[in-house]
Amino acid sequence: MVLVRELGEHGLLQLLFQYCPASIVGDDAALLAIAPSQSLVVTTDLLVDGVHFSIGHATPNLYTTSPADAGWRAAAANLSDLAAMGASPLGITVGLGLPGDLPVDVVEGFYIGMFNCLTLYGTPIVGGDVCRSPTLTVAISALGQVEPVYAIRRSHAQPGDVIVATGVHGASRAGLELLMNPERQGDLIASEVQTLVQAHQRPRPRLDVIPDLHRAIAQTGADFRVAGMDSSDGLADAVLQICQASQVGAILDRDRLPMPDCFSDWLSTEQALDWTLYGGEDFELVLCVPESVAIALCAEQPDLFPIGHITAEREIIVRDRAQVNPDIYLSEKKRFQHFS
Amino acid sequence: MVLVRELGEHGLLQLLFQYCPASIVGDDAALLAIAPSQSLVVTTDLLVDGVHFSIGHATPNLYTTSPADAGWRAAAANLSDLAAMGASPLGITVGLGLPGDLPVDVVEGFYIGMFNCLTLYGTPIVGGDVCRSPTLTVAISALGQVEPVYAIRRSHAQPGDVIVATGVHGASRAGLELLMNPERQGDLIASEVQTLVQAHQRPRPRLDVIPDLHRAIAQTGADFRVAGMDSSDGLADAVLQICQASQVGAILDRDRLPMPDCFSDWLSTEQALDWTLYGGEDFELVLCVPESVAIALCAEQPDLFPIGHITAEREIIVRDRAQVNPDIYLSEKKRFQHFS
Repeated sequence: MVLVRELGEHGLLQLLFQYCPASIVGDDAALLAIAPSQSLVVTTDLLVDGVHFSIGHATPNLYTTSPADAGWRAAAANLSDLAAMGASPLGITVGLGLPGDLPVDVVEGFYIGMFNCLTLYGTPIVGGDVCRSPTLTVAISALGQVEPVYAIRRSHAQPGDVIVATGVHGASRAGLELLMNPERQGDLIASEVQTLVQAHQRPRPRLDVIPDLHRAIAQTGADFRVAGMDSSDGLADAVLQICQASQVGAILDRDRLPMPDCFSDWLSTEQALDWTLYGGEDFELVLCVPESVAIALCAEQPDLFPIGHITAEREIIVRDRAQVNPDIYLSEKKRFQHFS
Repeated sequence: MVLVRELGEHGLLQLLFQYCPASIVGDDAALLAIAPSQSLVVTTDLLVDGVHFSIGHATPNLYTTSPADAGWRAAAANLSDLAAMGASPLGITVGLGLPGDLPVDVVEGFYIGMFNCLTLYGTPIVGGDVCRSPTLTVAISALGQVEPVYAIRRSHAQPGDVIVATGVHGASRAGLELLMNPERQGDLIASEVQTLVQAHQRPRPRLDVIPDLHRAIAQTGADFRVAGMDSSDGLADAVLQICQASQVGAILDRDRLPMPDCFSDWLSTEQALDWTLYGGEDFELVLCVPESVAIALCAEQPDLFPIGHITAEREIIVRDRAQVNPDIYLSEKKRFQHFS
């Protein structure tokens, strides 16, 4: 097992350059063409071993994520941020802080995971940096482009808009649970387990929805006005942040919250609701659009779900239309983690 | 003294948002206009406490860099990478990995240092990320734009080109020495000490040279062909890397290596030469241009120095034209640090 310290900076760069287009790396900075009339979109993530994943000094019982899975998820999270802006990806940069005693296999595994995810979306690794650090750290910046009028903004929601989720929520959280506590599998069949685990380990950013959205809006003849963000921090958080930025409220239909089918028999109602609203890391999009656009959009793809609507009153309520369960009021409380 | 843990993520973001344009932050990613016909330039740096600076858990005798100085230097290094591509800056993103027990003052000091440097060059902080980490870590991506034909590339040098350095070298290394060992000041006068320390703590990226370069080339009527990079890893390293990328060699004139005037009386010849060639972190540019361009360029600014020329033979030689000292052959040897 070769260690980072033994390979050295030069050897490591040679290894990692295999995953980058030769024409782009090798200068002080990468040079990328951008299409005429497009604006640049940029997002940054910092990932730390022991906080966001455990691949550098993993203890076996926490080994829910291989280096390749961690790399895939890191790439997916950044591509998801681009999708949330309505952008198409141009490339990513990767800064690596590496302990000298880290096996090179961990670094290459992480790169392969990123590379495989990025390749699905035609996105190159265009630059980066390596340095030593006592803590394995990965800094990713993703670059994309969007025609400014087609940018999706959190602040664009208006009362009456339909809220559309691009897929089920809670699957990633359930997958993590099954990896940490396999005995909780209960009556789930193997394919259900695999789907949930896959949702956690290999999430798919929803860049595919953007062209559908453009088509749906073109069909209705409406101007482009879409509010949205991704649900990386949970469905509830996405709705909260859109409402806060747009100074509006929302009513979500409790029986339309999109969760995996298997939740109904497998989990208690409370557990299913909690993971669906707060689980996080599903990397779907939450979009707010006029009703005509929502109808056209949901006709484009079977896994898009209208889950409620935007209101002028600045409360966010999960409402049971059958009035069996009481209203649930969502608040910022669960949102911010503290540094500890 | 408030700690990061006590302020929490929300409070910290509020604090840092003061240094960002309100119209840009607040979505999943930043949206930046790019001028027509320009390409995007992007560079990334990862900086780790205890490796690149000592501001998180500094021991007093290593306290050569305040948080604000570290922030300034981080911003300057990234702007220098943009200058080295011939680009003008659009903005930077900043990812912060912070220990919970870090004083908030350290974080804000770092931000103020970055902000002050960036403001000199009209560059906004357009996005970022904060998370907890056992090791204080800063990830910066700098974004710029350049018309593709005006990009400076390492691979564009040709035999006969004159090598131009945009300023003296070794000053930053000397400043560091004076901070670590004030008793080495010897006969230097206070203003000389201050200039050297300032070169280390507050380096100026040479974005100002790019318009001069454009003017000089326009005067000569030549096509734009400029090889270059910045001298962040030392003057020798810059020449080595340009020669390697361009598959050429170089002869540097020993008596034209640009060093601070005070070196001649203060330092031994060997020490002065070593710091000038290998000191690093001066953040000047090393440019290779046809002779006519070099003459026009050096007429534009008094602190630009022709230091040698590019050769077809793939050796890099420091030559004493008076033939008192023997030739020095530069090699890759000093270039790569190992992970330890």
